[in-house]
Amino acid sequence: MPKPKYHVIVCTTTRPPGNPRGSCGEKGSKELVPAFFAEMEKRELFGQILVTESSCLGPCPIGATVVVYPDGTWYKGVKPADVAEIMEEHISNGRPVKRLAIPEEMWG
Amino acid sequence: MPKPKYHVIVCTTTRPPGNPRGSCGEKGSKELVPAFFAEMEKRELFGQILVTESSCLGPCPIGATVVVYPDGTWYKGVKPADVAEIMEEHISNGRPVKRLAIPEEMWG
Repeated sequence: MPKPKYHVIVCTTTRPPGNPRGSCGEKGSKELVPAFFAEMEKRELFGQILVTESSCLGPCPIGATVVVYPDGTWYKGVKPADVAEIMEEHISNGRPVKRLAIPEEMWG
Repeated sequence: MPKPKYHVIVCTTTRPPGNPRGSCGEKGSKELVPAFFAEMEKRELFGQILVTESSCLGPCPIGATVVVYPDGTWYKGVKPADVAEIMEEHISNGRPVKRLAIPEEMWG
């Protein structure tokens, strides 16, 4: 396999409904994974982009959380409808999607 | 939470014994996670370093696979006994552990 150009990490941790921390899984993050795969297939990016599921990434209340490396862009509140934009703007054009990124001032 | 300085990603995918692809879980990668946490505690790095479990990262036959970002160092064949060295040399001193890194020529 080639070394991936981008690595997209999707938190799929799921806690039961009503858990005070919430979870990305509860917010539907499991649906993001096939959405990313469908976009990869459409853009013929298999082998260039790695998409993996992750245990808890931390910012549960503002999930679903997605992190993209190597640049280390953290996305919050990601919905399946956002995936095409992340793939087009960030992965294909190298421009992280600002409206979805966790702002610097939110990091404690 | 602060933005993590390093993100350590451990593949914990487990396939049944005898599966032709093998898996990191079958090679004991689940033990790496508490080993990283113990080293983080020892070095008081909680909140600075993020350690997460991952679905399949790809290089199953040479697992257990661990990836460290932001530098994107991929480690192969990682054993619990290697974790202290990765934490000391790479995470604390900023020098990736060459003997464990997947060599550039192994990327297809």
